Amino acid sequence: MNGPGHERCEGYGQRTFTGEALRTVAFPLGGIGTGTLSLGGRGNLCDWEIFNRPGKGKTLPYTFFSLWAQEEGGAAVARVLERQLLPPFVSGSGLPPNQAVGLPRLREARFTGAYPFAQVEFEDEALPLAVSLEAFNPMAPLDAGVSGLPVAIFLWKLRNPGNRPVAATLALSLCNAAGYDGVATFGNRPAHPSFGGNLNEWRDEGGVRGLTMTGGKAPSESAGAGSLAVATAWKDVTYLERWERAGWFDSLQSFWDDFRADGALPSVSQPEPSPDGSTDTGTLGLRATVPPGGEVCLPIVLGWHFPNLTNYWNRNSPVLGSRLGNYYTTKHSDAWEVVCNVVGRLDALRGRTRAFADALFESTVPATVLDAVSSQMSIIRTTTCLRTEDGAFHAFEGCNDNAGCCPMDCTHVWNYEQSLAQLYPALERSMRGTDFQVNTRPTGRMSFRTLLPVVSGELWDYKPAADGQMGCVLKLYREWQLCGDTEWLRALWPQAKRTVEWAWAPGSWDADRDGVMEGEQHNTYDIEFFGPNTMCGTLYLGALKAASLMADAVGDTAFAARCREVYESGRAKYDASLWNGEYYEQRVQVGEMHADSLSREDWHPSPIKAGETEPRYQYGPGCLSDQLLGQWFCHVAGLGYVLPEERVRAAMGAVVRHNWRATLSNHESCQRTYALNDEAGLLLCSWPRGGRPAYPFPYADEVWTGIEYQVAAHCIYEGLVTEGLRIVEGVRARHDGARRNPWDEFECGHHYARAMASYGLLLALTGCRWSAVESVLSFAPRAEAMNGGSFRSFFTCGSAWGTVTVGEDAAAGARLRVIEGSVALRRAEVVLPDRRQFSREFTAGTVLEAGRTYEMERP
Amino acid sequence: MNGPGHERCEGYGQRTFTGEALRTVAFPLGGIGTGTLSLGGRGNLCDWEIFNRPGKGKTLPYTFFSLWAQEEGGAAVARVLERQLLPPFVSGSGLPPNQAVGLPRLREARFTGAYPFAQVEFEDEALPLAVSLEAFNPMAPLDAGVSGLPVAIFLWKLRNPGNRPVAATLALSLCNAAGYDGVATFGNRPAHPSFGGNLNEWRDEGGVRGLTMTGGKAPSESAGAGSLAVATAWKDVTYLERWERAGWFDSLQSFWDDFRADGALPSVSQPEPSPDGSTDTGTLGLRATVPPGGEVCLPIVLGWHFPNLTNYWNRNSPVLGSRLGNYYTTKHSDAWEVVCNVVGRLDALRGRTRAFADALFESTVPATVLDAVSSQMSIIRTTTCLRTEDGAFHAFEGCNDNAGCCPMDCTHVWNYEQSLAQLYPALERSMRGTDFQVNTRPTGRMSFRTLLPVVSGELWDYKPAADGQMGCVLKLYREWQLCGDTEWLRALWPQAKRTVEWAWAPGSWDADRDGVMEGEQHNTYDIEFFGPNTMCGTLYLGALKAASLMADAVGDTAFAARCREVYESGRAKYDASLWNGEYYEQRVQVGEMHADSLSREDWHPSPIKAGETEPRYQYGPGCLSDQLLGQWFCHVAGLGYVLPEERVRAAMGAVVRHNWRATLSNHESCQRTYALNDEAGLLLCSWPRGGRPAYPFPYADEVWTGIEYQVAAHCIYEGLVTEGLRIVEGVRARHDGARRNPWDEFECGHHYARAMASYGLLLALTGCRWSAVESVLSFAPRAEAMNGGSFRSFFTCGSAWGTVTVGEDAAAGARLRVIEGSVALRRAEVVLPDRRQFSREFTAGTVLEAGRTYEMERP
Repeated sequence: MNGPGHERCEGYGQRTFTGEALRTVAFPLGGIGTGTLSLGGRGNLCDWEIFNRPGKGKTLPYTFFSLWAQEEGGAAVARVLERQLLPPFVSGSGLPPNQAVGLPRLREARFTGAYPFAQVEFEDEALPLAVSLEAFNPMAPLDAGVSGLPVAIFLWKLRNPGNRPVAATLALSLCNAAGYDGVATFGNRPAHPSFGGNLNEWRDEGGVRGLTMTGGKAPSESAGAGSLAVATAWKDVTYLERWERAGWFDSLQSFWDDFRADGALPSVSQPEPSPDGSTDTGTLGLRATVPPGGEVCLPIVLGWHFPNLTNYWNRNSPVLGSRLGNYYTTKHSDAWEVVCNVVGRLDALRGRTRAFADALFESTVPATVLDAVSSQMSIIRTTTCLRTEDGAFHAFEGCNDNAGCCPMDCTHVWNYEQSLAQLYPALERSMRGTDFQVNTRPTGRMSFRTLLPVVSGELWDYKPAADGQMGCVLKLYREWQLCGDTEWLRALWPQAKRTVEWAWAPGSWDADRDGVMEGEQHNTYDIEFFGPNTMCGTLYLGALKAASLMADAVGDTAFAARCREVYESGRAKYDASLWNGEYYEQRVQVGEMHADSLSREDWHPSPIKAGETEPRYQYGPGCLSDQLLGQWFCHVAGLGYVLPEERVRAAMGAVVRHNWRATLSNHESCQRTYALNDEAGLLLCSWPRGGRPAYPFPYADEVWTGIEYQVAAHCIYEGLVTEGLRIVEGVRARHDGARRNPWDEFECGHHYARAMASYGLLLALTGCRWSAVESVLSFAPRAEAMNGGSFRSFFTCGSAWGTVTVGEDAAAGARLRVIEGSVALRRAEVVLPDRRQFSREFTAGTVLEAGRTYEMERP
Repeated sequence: MNGPGHERCEGYGQRTFTGEALRTVAFPLGGIGTGTLSLGGRGNLCDWEIFNRPGKGKTLPYTFFSLWAQEEGGAAVARVLERQLLPPFVSGSGLPPNQAVGLPRLREARFTGAYPFAQVEFEDEALPLAVSLEAFNPMAPLDAGVSGLPVAIFLWKLRNPGNRPVAATLALSLCNAAGYDGVATFGNRPAHPSFGGNLNEWRDEGGVRGLTMTGGKAPSESAGAGSLAVATAWKDVTYLERWERAGWFDSLQSFWDDFRADGALPSVSQPEPSPDGSTDTGTLGLRATVPPGGEVCLPIVLGWHFPNLTNYWNRNSPVLGSRLGNYYTTKHSDAWEVVCNVVGRLDALRGRTRAFADALFESTVPATVLDAVSSQMSIIRTTTCLRTEDGAFHAFEGCNDNAGCCPMDCTHVWNYEQSLAQLYPALERSMRGTDFQVNTRPTGRMSFRTLLPVVSGELWDYKPAADGQMGCVLKLYREWQLCGDTEWLRALWPQAKRTVEWAWAPGSWDADRDGVMEGEQHNTYDIEFFGPNTMCGTLYLGALKAASLMADAVGDTAFAARCREVYESGRAKYDASLWNGEYYEQRVQVGEMHADSLSREDWHPSPIKAGETEPRYQYGPGCLSDQLLGQWFCHVAGLGYVLPEERVRAAMGAVVRHNWRATLSNHESCQRTYALNDEAGLLLCSWPRGGRPAYPFPYADEVWTGIEYQVAAHCIYEGLVTEGLRIVEGVRARHDGARRNPWDEFECGHHYARAMASYGLLLALTGCRWSAVESVLSFAPRAEAMNGGSFRSFFTCGSAWGTVTVGEDAAAGARLRVIEGSVALRRAEVVLPDRRQFSREFTAGTVLEAGRTYEMERP
């Protein structure tokens, strides 16, 4: 934990990975909707996903950092700036020259990530310099523009621990991959049918110098059409505009021989397009002499510009092949303009990003929780998420290795995430626009996925998802509370109302309108629950409660009353019929089916089998981890309890007691596996009282981080803080670098959106609640979120973000610091577990402003 | 080391792998030309390569061993019989259910391989039984038939360490993969367009019971057309003919629930073809009750039959798509017949295989050398090698992950291997038939690769390889010596003679016929050497010497004399012009080119570049590891020295001194990488005296095990035994399971043929020399091949194999034991380093016979 009294360090007290633990580390570098590349644990550049699709395992040929260094009077040494490779070393044709695997590397690396910052410290006695790297992409909450720059920024620090000057060249070699489709895997040579006419050009303009790399032959509408650039403001530079075009290993050999000799490259500009089918590599080197005891920081900005996001994911659909475009490419004309823009304001961009990281990590919230919160907010800026040319935000569920998975905007998976709603609420509102203005039919039935582009007029055709549809109503309420914009709510209200009413249609979920869903409830487990269950049920109750409040706000009092009536009926009935003394069960019951709800065998197998009396894929008397999913969301959204508080608390205790496994060595699952061996994890379901169905629902026996975070946060809301933190620690321990990448929690795809439920941990632990409708910002931290008597945390409140601080001393005050944005506030308050309270009332119309601190007082 | 006095153990003193060292272990199970599947280090079945192509990483769905066990009065326990998975655990969609990853496995495994036997001992306290597995494919030297059975044999031992009886079921579940193309990767369901109409049938015939699995829909000429079978002679069996056909995870769930309940499966036979596009899994279980302190051995034979080997590798060639067929499938009608055949004589097959392994491993030769020799002889029985329907033996250089690499019969790569020649000399002679009767043009120019089928009449068109072509003459001599069949030699002689004469043609390698090759010498580095060098040169000298002897034998005395003359000229000139006082250099010199020798830019880049005075890719004054390649071969073939003995010895010392790296941490290579970091390895070349070309030959900076073994064996021949063994230990240390698979040395492809140079280590260390022409078998072991004063080793002599033994005691005698085959012998002798000698003269016509021991006496 990093209390405010601690000395700030680069890693902010986050974990450091070294040796075998570097194996799976890949830290995404990229902005919102720009795609990413990743910084591998060894300092290598990997997973190039800037070509309009995911690309796990995709590397660019001959793209690496290298260092030449010579102590005065000593011998020169040259190294690829990566830690040595980790075993295994198996490749049928040898480890590839295009990754310069045969060139010497550094003995060890220590990797620390505090998203959005990665830090690598290298160790190698052969170097006369201590070398470290800071890498990041600019990020500021609420500002999707600055958080959406298509760059990776590398700040290399060279420190001279000796007593003689050391001359050095720090170089980035980069393959001009313009034209690359993001799919092919390169052999020894960077060859591709879309390469040819690729042009590397040296530029030195207005204090920015570097290489611009453009494509030639690639069709202008292709995913690979675009440009790359690498630049610096550093004045003393050397470069090789393009490597020798030669066979065998001669390109790399001639570059390396030149570089290793004296660290100086020819630095001659004679641009010439590449021959058909091939492209060129270029190198930018930054030269410096580091005095004894001194240090230099060498900045390199890598930028890209690939405008053609195209729907490649909806098979057999008229939208397949339609161009969507990228929002980010509308802001600059090419990659060179990007890097000029960024190099020119690098200090400011880094300063804003540091301010965010400082606010987030210089906190009394446990480091493990900050790890979960920060690492998974990166999902917003991976290829899981898109920002199309029209500015709309869209998202897959996650990313398969080379394609997005489960398009698009899936309502039930996105029920769990809270990060986007809190950090970029305007983007989250764009999703609500899609939900209600695009995917909601006149009947109120929602498509729970989006076909892009939406101009096709066709909706995705599948049975509706009970959890997703009700979740959208809850999310609408959340967005309204966060922004306070009732006019925005009013615009969406007619469709939102119909989505609630659809639940009451004949054959639908609650055709008898008693507040209990009995019908076929398709849900996030990709199957249908039949009969009452509190997983869909609490989302329904929450939606009814939220709908009644929103109806009131827009003046639809009759509908508000109807929702309240159904809600009151439902909460009583759910509790009465499903409580088993310990937790809430499912009552399996197959009734009349809605015409829209018929199972389609061509998609997922039907739970209803000939000759079987009960439907498959139910949980019946099982203890479902998600059984109070809607209740959790109600806590997050400030909607209070929808079921009796004491039973909710007891049920969460039962979930942890029955579904948490300290080790999975004896666990039996015939499903997919996300946790195994001696790892700990929370199962989706268990049957502590027997009654496990022969064919339990998929994915009952699995472990999903998104649900673990949801349950952990809910436990914390219920006061089961120890239990909640234990779950979080279990998740993060599984993502220890050696087993899994801490910055990639996968489920059905990498960077799976559900994992952004982790942001709820911060809300639950700090008790942060913000209502722009009421203009009240309040905190009620748990003791575990404090460092003794002191409390400090990051917060957002829709239009501003900053920190809240309470001093250790009983006499000390509490204060809000607004770091960016502004917010109109009526009241702020902090209630501590030791009963200390601080608050401040503001006069009507008071706007809190960035850079200012506001004291709160004890009553 | 496992001296004869040591107690025999399963692993014969070979290394045991456990924990992380199991990571890359994959032990090939299969016969000559049958394809293989591999036993992974964890006891898993992996790398299914029985579908007429390599398949690294290809797994079959739902194919695994499992155990149910219940101690009397105790609870039942069920486990997948594999060690727990090793990290990393990254997969975008979770680890796959089709590998039953979510079912509990065993805590640890200890894997020992002594090819052809693999042994896995499992450790898990949860089991009431001690479980171990022996897996092998029958193998007997000289008998390609019994060594070419398409089966994997699994002998499971269950030992009861407790004091109550334990009931157990040992099961193999197997996916009916008939129809599979060997390329597709399966998802959750075993689906493939070629599946459909697949039929699993229970059979119980004549003491053999099990499941036969046939395909239905796959076209009869396709690579996947064929059958699988699993069978046992065990009487108490239980089975599930086919798993439930169901969606989601229900198939595995219903099998597992049934199995884990009581270890009994329905055992009902109702064969029914699978629906279109899908196939079925079946399970065979063997039941036993193991008494306290008792042990049972449960045998399972897996067999296959896939007749359609087809040329998929020669692109843009008329032979592409031509069917070659498999020899092995001509011996049985289908997989069921295979398993019936093998189950019926399992003890005999195991006995013969054990006799071979005992002979090989119960030896005073160092265990590391036996590891190198045995592990790489497995290449003969991987997909690197083929035996086509006509009985001919053909081979790639190695295997890419999913296709053979560098077809076919490459003369220069196959220069290095000795295993096939010694173990299966008839198959090796089939390669000589191809070399001379197919690939040799009337001019004497050889194609150094074969186009299959040869009936196409077209030859592979590329410049000839100097090392390969001369090597073929040497190999012809070796085969003649090993078989003694001068009529066979006579049949090939006219073409063999022309291949020598081609060297003297205008513009060819030695147009001035002075015994020195000055011309463009394409070679195994895939480039051309220009000017004299002893790498090609010693092969040339050896070929001249061999040719003179063979010419004498067939009565071509004029040619013999001419060869001798050229040979004498050449050996003097090479020595005079290339010796630099320490080793032999290359003199780079570009002369007139032969019309057939022009470089083709479309294949490999030309070394002759416009504007450059010297050709690229030479070694000049470098110290080449292969500089005495031909001399090594002459030692193996009993041809003696072609260059001065003292200089040969000195040069080998220089090779080790300059090219051996105890660590590669500072090594710089722009080429492919086979050894790195702190690993040791022998570089292909170095330039200790300077003069490294700017563009050295590929693959100068690489480390190849085949060359390491060649150099190590040559060092041993020269008395540099410590140096030789150090190299071998370095290779094997790199293949430690964690880094690389001990049973897969890759270069340009897995199971790379050059690695079979390792057999030369056994010949060098034991000084074994066999000439069927002279009927003399002699041994001259190095002290390092002995255990104190005793000596024991495996040997082959063309038509027989056995062991040679010398007792420790000075008074003890020496003896030959013939284990299989028979051989006509005139003289046998052993000369020991301590000057003890033993010998025996046999009267003309004496045939040594299998099962008999022949004493030798001191003179």
